Amino acid sequence: MKEENGTKNRREQEESTESLVFGRNEVLSLFRTGKTVEKLYVQQGLKDGPIRTILREAEKKGTVVRFLSRERLNEMAGQKAHQGVIALSGAAQYADMEEVFRLARERGEAPLLYLLDEVQDPHNLGAMIRTAYVAGAHGVIIPKVRSALLTASAVKASAGAALYVPVVKVGNLVQTMEELKKQGNGFVCADMDGESMYDLDLTGPMGLVMGNEGKGVSRLVKEHCDLIARVPMRGELGSLNVSVACGVLTYEILRQRGLKG
Amino acid sequence: MKEENGTKNRREQEESTESLVFGRNEVLSLFRTGKTVEKLYVQQGLKDGPIRTILREAEKKGTVVRFLSRERLNEMAGQKAHQGVIALSGAAQYADMEEVFRLARERGEAPLLYLLDEVQDPHNLGAMIRTAYVAGAHGVIIPKVRSALLTASAVKASAGAALYVPVVKVGNLVQTMEELKKQGNGFVCADMDGESMYDLDLTGPMGLVMGNEGKGVSRLVKEHCDLIARVPMRGELGSLNVSVACGVLTYEILRQRGLKG
Repeated sequence: MKEENGTKNRREQEESTESLVFGRNEVLSLFRTGKTVEKLYVQQGLKDGPIRTILREAEKKGTVVRFLSRERLNEMAGQKAHQGVIALSGAAQYADMEEVFRLARERGEAPLLYLLDEVQDPHNLGAMIRTAYVAGAHGVIIPKVRSALLTASAVKASAGAALYVPVVKVGNLVQTMEELKKQGNGFVCADMDGESMYDLDLTGPMGLVMGNEGKGVSRLVKEHCDLIARVPMRGELGSLNVSVACGVLTYEILRQRGLKG
Repeated sequence: MKEENGTKNRREQEESTESLVFGRNEVLSLFRTGKTVEKLYVQQGLKDGPIRTILREAEKKGTVVRFLSRERLNEMAGQKAHQGVIALSGAAQYADMEEVFRLARERGEAPLLYLLDEVQDPHNLGAMIRTAYVAGAHGVIIPKVRSALLTASAVKASAGAALYVPVVKVGNLVQTMEELKKQGNGFVCADMDGESMYDLDLTGPMGLVMGNEGKGVSRLVKEHCDLIARVPMRGELGSLNVSVACGVLTYEILRQRGLKG
């Protein structure tokens, strides 16, 4: 169980109404039937038995928990009875890292992964999962906090690709990168201050790291990258949408790896 | 005045009433590009650098400023991120075709245009205008019916690029293509049944035609294209988001034209 810090993304608020589950039995069922619970909202101050049971389940599963005022829960629930607990359930299932590597092994390919560093917009997340599928990437890795999640909107924006591409939710992106490095993976992140993608060798086992829509790739994540790639621009100003940049970089990787189509 | 035939796009209806621009970069771009800002709404108490810059611009232009509570701005913005500032404007202006060619002449470049054949989603329209700006394309041409228009959502999704790239709204895309052909422009459209983009010569004066999210490029428009380009895929299934495909094709065009960055 982990408490979430920081400001709540407005878009996330919008999204969460799509797949909210209200009430104690309902939420407990989600956990007990092995469904993905993205986030658990619990009324501040409640400490009775059923609530403690739900919190224990959340702890076991590593679900993010936020404690909110009763008024805030009422607002979220609208006319529905929430009994002090609301869960945001996931639209698609997450995979674990082993699945990603199994997929690469089965295909006899060098792993190609996306690591998304706090991408906020479910449309962007969905579009990148869609690209991952088309490009034959083996997995998409996202952090469990401050990131768009596999909600109905993201799955919709992926045009269904989210059901085929393994999406792995990790506690800490940097730690995951360190583990992947031990297994021989390199990382390239997209950044305007990097070298032109045309001048880099992108043929090895590779994690492509894309950053947040506003802030880009965070400092610590960038420090863990072997290469920093810039998508060249003709103008001096402007930047690409993150899912477009991801697509352009992906196709440069594929071109270097000999994709002809 | 011309009455529109057929079913009116709900999104278009909804959107066309908007003339609000949200967010700091977007509002600042309005001022800096000389667009009319009727009124500026700023969150009470904000005094940071970017806000002060925007207020200075408003003072120079004699724009009416109203300070409102954060709650009031949230209400105005609905689900959109306003970052403490909202401008009431005529969104972005459309250009005429002459502007597009003047821009190409001024830069001494072969025209590079986008023609969007009934793209519906303002996020996709915005993302492609953003790509057009970064790639140094000279204009974006959209049909006036059955297309996402230059609404506040599209301008926002373009990250302000819609204020720099000429966007031309035409009555009939096929007719416009015929006129452009007389001036020596070729057309390449994106289609899964085409030839691999790597096997095509994309170096001439070029209109890149992208189709509707669901149906792709329409038959008549496709028949007016000289080349049909496929973005190669590694899998057998799936397809790219239209704005991602547009980005990938654009960068293949730029690469063939010698972009090194």
